[in-house]
Parts: sequence; structure tokens; C-alpha cells
Amino acid sequence: MATDGGTASDDLTPTYREEGSFERDMDYVPDRITKDARTPEHGPTDVRLWPVEPGRYRLVAAPACPWANRSLIVRHLLGLEDAISLGTPGPTHDARSWTFDRDPGGKDPVLGIERLQEAYFARFPDYEKGITVPAVVEVASGELVTNDFPWITHDLFHEWRDHHRPDAPDLWPDECREEMEEVMERIFTEVNNGVYRSGFAGSQEAYDDAYERLWTAMDWLEERLTDRRYLMGDAITEADVRLFTTLARFDAVYHGHFKCNRNKLTEMPALWGYARDLFQTPGFGETVDFEQIKAHYYVVHTDINPSGIVPQGPDPAVWQTPHDRAGL
Amino acid sequence: MATDGGTASDDLTPTYREEGSFERDMDYVPDRITKDARTPEHGPTDVRLWPVEPGRYRLVAAPACPWANRSLIVRHLLGLEDAISLGTPGPTHDARSWTFDRDPGGKDPVLGIERLQEAYFARFPDYEKGITVPAVVEVASGELVTNDFPWITHDLFHEWRDHHRPDAPDLWPDECREEMEEVMERIFTEVNNGVYRSGFAGSQEAYDDAYERLWTAMDWLEERLTDRRYLMGDAITEADVRLFTTLARFDAVYHGHFKCNRNKLTEMPALWGYARDLFQTPGFGETVDFEQIKAHYYVVHTDINPSGIVPQGPDPAVWQTPHDRAGL
Repeated sequence: MATDGGTASDDLTPTYREEGSFERDMDYVPDRITKDARTPEHGPTDVRLWPVEPGRYRLVAAPACPWANRSLIVRHLLGLEDAISLGTPGPTHDARSWTFDRDPGGKDPVLGIERLQEAYFARFPDYEKGITVPAVVEVASGELVTNDFPWITHDLFHEWRDHHRPDAPDLWPDECREEMEEVMERIFTEVNNGVYRSGFAGSQEAYDDAYERLWTAMDWLEERLTDRRYLMGDAITEADVRLFTTLARFDAVYHGHFKCNRNKLTEMPALWGYARDLFQTPGFGETVDFEQIKAHYYVVHTDINPSGIVPQGPDPAVWQTPHDRAGL
Repeated sequence: MATDGGTASDDLTPTYREEGSFERDMDYVPDRITKDARTPEHGPTDVRLWPVEPGRYRLVAAPACPWANRSLIVRHLLGLEDAISLGTPGPTHDARSWTFDRDPGGKDPVLGIERLQEAYFARFPDYEKGITVPAVVEVASGELVTNDFPWITHDLFHEWRDHHRPDAPDLWPDECREEMEEVMERIFTEVNNGVYRSGFAGSQEAYDDAYERLWTAMDWLEERLTDRRYLMGDAITEADVRLFTTLARFDAVYHGHFKCNRNKLTEMPALWGYARDLFQTPGFGETVDFEQIKAHYYVVHTDINPSGIVPQGPDPAVWQTPHDRAGL
């Protein structure tokens, strides 16, 4: 998200703390983009509905951010690159959040803005919450449409079907949607957000609690993936996308920076094989930029890493080693 | 050492920085305790010489500190427990350095002091340098004798021979002393101190340089220990003691806290087998207190870890797994 979970030093952070525990502010701009602006079957409906229209929207997604990384993967898996263009902020934003510092002239070449903040203010001049990625922006008006990350990827699948590539995967199989929602919910609260709860804990007790919850969930996943190739069985779903972006950052950032250090991901055979299997699947590994990921966390979170020094390790070459999961 | 290598926030630290690089202040109180106060064959001689005398001195060594840990191991290996008593400061000292906060009433039961600083001031009322462990204190006067850590363990072997246990190991074999000095020098500059150079780097460039130097040395050690059970061959020497205390802290502290994260120690087969071999040798493992080690670094170095939160991982149980090194 905007500030990627927020930092204590960042006024724009979409987070707050109570009694030392990190809590994620989930109050996003919940507009939806749906086919012909229809009312969607799932999720928030009492919102402004925008019609699916190729070329009308730009996805702004920093590769450093795990929440934005989901949208990069789904856009790629579904072959939506031509329908929805992509803007990519750099990894090391300041207190005013994400900037297009890596683009020529420091501006997004389509939106013409230096800061993602400008698209938020174009829509809401007094916007006071976190400037988060992923964000979908209407190109013509330069206005934010939505930053409600779980529904962005949901709708890329359900609402943009007419524009998917012919062999696009079924990321939301009807027959297992109910179980998948439960799995994704547990992954969100215990793992995706669990690593932040560990890293942003404001007290030893809050950290200890976060650590126990995280590893309980990691052990559950390790067991689940021992005899399943993917979370829901034989095929990749949205649930895998959501777990993957946290696993991709685990040893590079969460293990040390967020103190999630019971063990490295590489020390959990099923999860590590699973993570490599996905990484080596087209649409996943190419969206992962370890240098940007490390730069983001270690530079932005000055309250955790005051020196701003970025560790050199670990060697990402291990992600390319064989996984032997195809037989599962 | 007193402040265990020093922290940027600790005025008493025996360290300073130039152009971002950490440098260790090696200007200790270099007095020696020798047999009949004789002039020693090696090391500083233009110093006050104190005679070996069982019961006269107290070793003050915090289990948390790697430099102090050396003296704990050597005292144990040589069976000097009855000749030299032991005082053990707790792991989390303040700006005035090590305290006996774990002892009854918060005082060392023999020296009767709350802070190791008091023994330093008893000897030098205007002492301005770091209050470091290991320190040897004369019990009757309460005065510091020496804190010159490399010579403390050297002299425990060479000068206290009359009081060693009958089957004490030859920690300084004459036939390999020259090579051993070279090995120990490289281990000191590149590994023992190298991890601090990495963790206390004041710039990305200084860190990057420290990281490269550390891992070059770690690779050299991995290779050296592939076909040697110990650093100098078939028997444990002082060189092994000096390497061990850094390895014991590697995954628990240096990997994350000091950003020495190319890999964990457990990922280097020879070094990890070697470290476990020593850990499981009487005199080594029982001097390692992972809880105190982690508490020390993560609480004292507020400039690196402002929250003071101590990570729960990694699980130290792995140190007890078989090492299969006996056949080397």
C-alpha cells in the first residue's frame, strides 16, 4: 500500500498502533471498475462504479511493495498489459510517499505527475489518508479511481474477462471460492500482514504475539503445501498470488528487518519449493525486483533501520534452483 | 569488550569512526599476570607485572560479550575455576556500562560493587575509556588489573600452567605458533571484528566493504575447515576459541542485527559442523547463553535497533544436532 504498511515516521501511513500492536488501516477508496459499470457480485457495492474500458486507466504499482506486486502479477497472468498501462514509482519514497523518480524527468510519462499524491489530490483535494499503491488512475482526468487492493485484483479477473488473453488461468475457480476466501483471509491476517505486525510491534509483548501467530500460520502453510502443488490444489489461483508476494520478500527483508527469524523461507522445504515453483512461472519472477524491495524497506523505515544501509544478502540466485514440485 | 565493541550512542565506547568505517580502539590497560611476575616471552612487557596467585584475582566476564566469552571458555578448558573466581555482569548495560544486575542485591558477591566501572575507577580515578569485559580485578584492592583481552587468555595458558587441570589441552602448541598467530590475526580483523565493522558501518560504502571482507574470510574458513577438524589440525587451540565466540553469535545476532546476511552459519557445511563440534565439547557450549547474547545486542545498540525488541529466533536447538566431524 501507499506507504507499504506504514512507518512510524510517516504521517501518511495508513496504519495506527494501539498498546504496541500494529494495526493496518483498511479504509481505502473503494470504487470498483466493472464490466459496463454493473453491480459486482462480491465485495463493496455501495461505491462509485466505473466501466471497464481498455486504455482508460493506468495501474500505478511500485515493484517494491507486496500489495502492489499482486496487481503486477495478476495483470501479467491475465494478459491485461495492453488494456491497462502501468506506472511504476521507485522504491524509496519520502514522507509524501511514492514518487516517479525512476522515470525520465522524474515524471510518470503518461500521467505527467511527479508524485502519486497528485492523483489522489486530483480526486480528493483534502485527502488525508495514506498515499498507497496499488492505485488505479483515470488517465484523462488524472484522478484516483481506487486503491482498494484486494478488489483491484479481484476485478481484474472477474470484470475484465473480455480482455484476458485466451489461455488466461482461472484465478478464482467457482468450485472452491468459499474455501479460498478462508485461506486468503488467514494468509492476510497472519502472514501478509503478520510480518508487518512483527516488524512494527511497539512492545516486546506485541512482537512476541505477532511472532507466534506468524509461525503458527507458516507451519500450517508448510503442511498444506507438502502434498498440494498450489494452495487450492493443482492450479494457480489468486490465493497463490497473495501468498507469493510475501514469500518473495521473506528472506530478503522480513527475516531480518521485521525480526521474523525463526527460520528462513529456504529452511521450509514445501514452502520454499512452492515459492520457487511460482517464481519460475511466467508472470511471477519477472515482477520481483529484490534490489528495489530491499531499498524500499531498509531506506523508508528509518524508525527500524536508522542508518538506511541496505544489506547485501541474501543471494537471490537460489530462486532459480530446481523445485521438483511438478509431480505433486 | 566493555561495551562489546561500542555503540554509537555510548560515550564509554572504546571505538571511533572515520569516514563511516568502524574502528576498534585497542588501547587497553595492558598489565600482565605472570608466573612469579616474570617478564613474558610474548606480547607487551613494558607494563606492570602481577604475580600468578590462586584466589587473588577475579575474572569479570559477561556471557553476552564475545570477547569475554573467550576467557570463560579458556578458564573452563584449563580447569582454572578454583584458581580464578568469576563475576558475571548482566547483558543489558547502560551508558555507564556493565552492571552486576543479576547478582543478589545487584552487587557482585565478591567485589561488592554494582558496576564494573567502580573497579576501573578504583585503579584510575579519571579513567575515560570504555569499561570493557573481560576484566581481571584484584579482589583485595578492588582494582582493575587488566582488560587487554587477547593477553588475558594467552596468559591463562602460559603463565597459570601450575594450576591447570592435569589433562588440560595445549591451546598454544609451539610447533604451529607462528601459523596460528597469522590465522588468529586474520580471524580477528576480518571475522571477530569484521561483523562489528559491518554492523557499525556509518555509510553504505563502509558496509559494502566490510561485507565483502567478512565473506571473503568466511569462505576461506569454510575451505580450511573442510578437511581439518580444527583450525590448526587435530586438536583444539586458542584459535578455535577465538573463532567460536563469533560463530556462536552469528545466526542469533550478526546475520540480522549486523546485516551479515549473505547466508546463515547453518548454510556453510564445514563451518557449521565445526561450530557444533566445538559447542558440544565441554567448556564451549555451557558458556553460551543465547538469551543473554540476544538481549545484549538488541537492547544496548539503540542506534541500530531503536525499539529494543529482541527477536525470538532462531531456535538454538540446532546446535545440539550431530556434526560428524570426529572422523576428520
